[in-house]
Amino acid sequence: MGLKTIANNKNLNDLGEADIIQFIQEKGPSRLPSHLKKGIGDDCAVLKTDGDRPLLVTTDTLVEGIHFTNQTLSPKALGWKALAVNVSDISAMGGTPHTAFLSLGIKPETNVSFIESFMAGFQAISDKTGIVLAGGDTVESPSFLVITVTLLGDCLPEHVVYRCGAREGDDLWVTGTLGNAAAGLFLLQNKQVAQSSEFKSQIRAHQKPMPPLEVGKALGESGLVHAMIDISDGIAKDLAHICEQSGVGAVLQAAEIPISPRVMKLAAEMGKNPLDWALHGGEDYELLFAASPADRQKIISLTAKVSNIPATRIGKAIRQQGIWLETAKGRDRLGPGGYFHFSRSPAETR
Amino acid sequence: MGLKTIANNKNLNDLGEADIIQFIQEKGPSRLPSHLKKGIGDDCAVLKTDGDRPLLVTTDTLVEGIHFTNQTLSPKALGWKALAVNVSDISAMGGTPHTAFLSLGIKPETNVSFIESFMAGFQAISDKTGIVLAGGDTVESPSFLVITVTLLGDCLPEHVVYRCGAREGDDLWVTGTLGNAAAGLFLLQNKQVAQSSEFKSQIRAHQKPMPPLEVGKALGESGLVHAMIDISDGIAKDLAHICEQSGVGAVLQAAEIPISPRVMKLAAEMGKNPLDWALHGGEDYELLFAASPADRQKIISLTAKVSNIPATRIGKAIRQQGIWLETAKGRDRLGPGGYFHFSRSPAETR
Repeated sequence: MGLKTIANNKNLNDLGEADIIQFIQEKGPSRLPSHLKKGIGDDCAVLKTDGDRPLLVTTDTLVEGIHFTNQTLSPKALGWKALAVNVSDISAMGGTPHTAFLSLGIKPETNVSFIESFMAGFQAISDKTGIVLAGGDTVESPSFLVITVTLLGDCLPEHVVYRCGAREGDDLWVTGTLGNAAAGLFLLQNKQVAQSSEFKSQIRAHQKPMPPLEVGKALGESGLVHAMIDISDGIAKDLAHICEQSGVGAVLQAAEIPISPRVMKLAAEMGKNPLDWALHGGEDYELLFAASPADRQKIISLTAKVSNIPATRIGKAIRQQGIWLETAKGRDRLGPGGYFHFSRSPAETR
Repeated sequence: MGLKTIANNKNLNDLGEADIIQFIQEKGPSRLPSHLKKGIGDDCAVLKTDGDRPLLVTTDTLVEGIHFTNQTLSPKALGWKALAVNVSDISAMGGTPHTAFLSLGIKPETNVSFIESFMAGFQAISDKTGIVLAGGDTVESPSFLVITVTLLGDCLPEHVVYRCGAREGDDLWVTGTLGNAAAGLFLLQNKQVAQSSEFKSQIRAHQKPMPPLEVGKALGESGLVHAMIDISDGIAKDLAHICEQSGVGAVLQAAEIPISPRVMKLAAEMGKNPLDWALHGGEDYELLFAASPADRQKIISLTAKVSNIPATRIGKAIRQQGIWLETAKGRDRLGPGGYFHFSRSPAETR
């Protein structure tokens, strides 16, 4: 749905984030200026510099009550996560993050100890990833906390991986296991944290995600990856971006989607479908990428070499448009079902 | 007041923005990494690249109800201003802006026509300044609009002007006239807009400021300017940044502060002190800079050459700490009186 065809009296509840982004994109230049290799529409913008290494830039906003609450994230976890979601975007381009800018809209009644804890979390992941905080803005917000982080990174031009290069017949891969963050959020929202020491890593996946930066970088450097994106909104929605920009469709094998035994167990206990968490939960901050079937063994060796996070083949890029899920019962079209800001689907899990 | 000495149960109402920034700065690295020429604490961060031109980065957040209301800014003016305040920061370093990132936290009931008008304003100043929109984020905000713009620019390393180079004996200069934005805001808040076609340029100064980009750039290139800052929070507060970072004090001549005849007239009619607007009103987005008295004529020629915005000498950098205002009655210490987020002084004008 292009926004240009939408009546002006429609409001954002009737639309989705993708429509608004498309609308804003249409307002952008029809031809990219020479210094811009990639503008709106990928995990990062890619800017040519007058040196060898293009600059990667990404920005993400977290809003209290929409993306987090004080029930689901401690101040320290929030500081970590605000930067982590941006690290994930740099990782999805194959890049190395280096410089962060932090804008905070803070409620007047906020305690200094809150800021201290928030900054401790922000600093912890900065230290882990070699990122330096170089500026920002601090303003008053009337009634809820708003955090915008802009993160800069770089990458050799031949190693940058975009969303647009997947080819028919490519294998589709994911790193790690999926659905952990959704399971963790479910626990936190259902106040079963006390009993959930068994599910510590799911809670952690929601609160303190650590994007597989080394894997993204190694994949970019390998030259084996045709397209890549991070899994932030749920694999169904994120894969749709790769498909749209690459002009392909995709078929996923339900039985191949990697889900940890703990998530399977929790879902069974709670009467939930673990595949819903894995496909639509979002916030796993793992990588989804496309590569030639000829390079399967190389991909496995490579990821095993740089990290203990396995990569799993979950499907294939196909000529037919759309994203399809193959189960024992046959092949069904997979709706987005991920989290859409503004327009909320019943399938939403947070 | 250093935050380290503040009890954790104090909240942000008891503090000021400067304290929070200082606090966050203290959390930063004690030594700048090699790629960072300047981190927190100037109008922009300055990043070395592997090319010739360092990267300038700034970010500013505008919050509905704090920085603007729909009474004082139309959607189109808001789009303009959200980028203009960042252009001003690049200008204050002597740089040229090129790439913007726009994060919007939008209320669900927002009309599409609002976004369209906002983007038209954003695009208008982008076109005027050669800036391209390269990315951003669009999220839901529960109850008020939040806008964060991150702007990138560049500059030859020898032309970057910092806040820290003012020397005892330097002339202090400002571009343009001061107090226009405060006068415009006063009119808008007092709903006297209907009668105020006479004060169109004051309304415009508040709603659609145009930072003197060419002047900033020419001053940077000239090598004549020892320190520079943009006037965003009121000259008293902005000058304090130059003084603190340069280790000097300053004395301003009240009679030399450039105020337009229209602002003088409005203030007289409304029983206001025009000097309050000029010193503390803020948001003029003019430039304040320090240069040697030996270069007076060169500064005047230079600014006259690139623009019709005059530069005016308003005082001197002195050895004695503090900022002083010299009037017919003598010399008084000038309190900040600018707008402090969180801690509000009675002198606040907005």
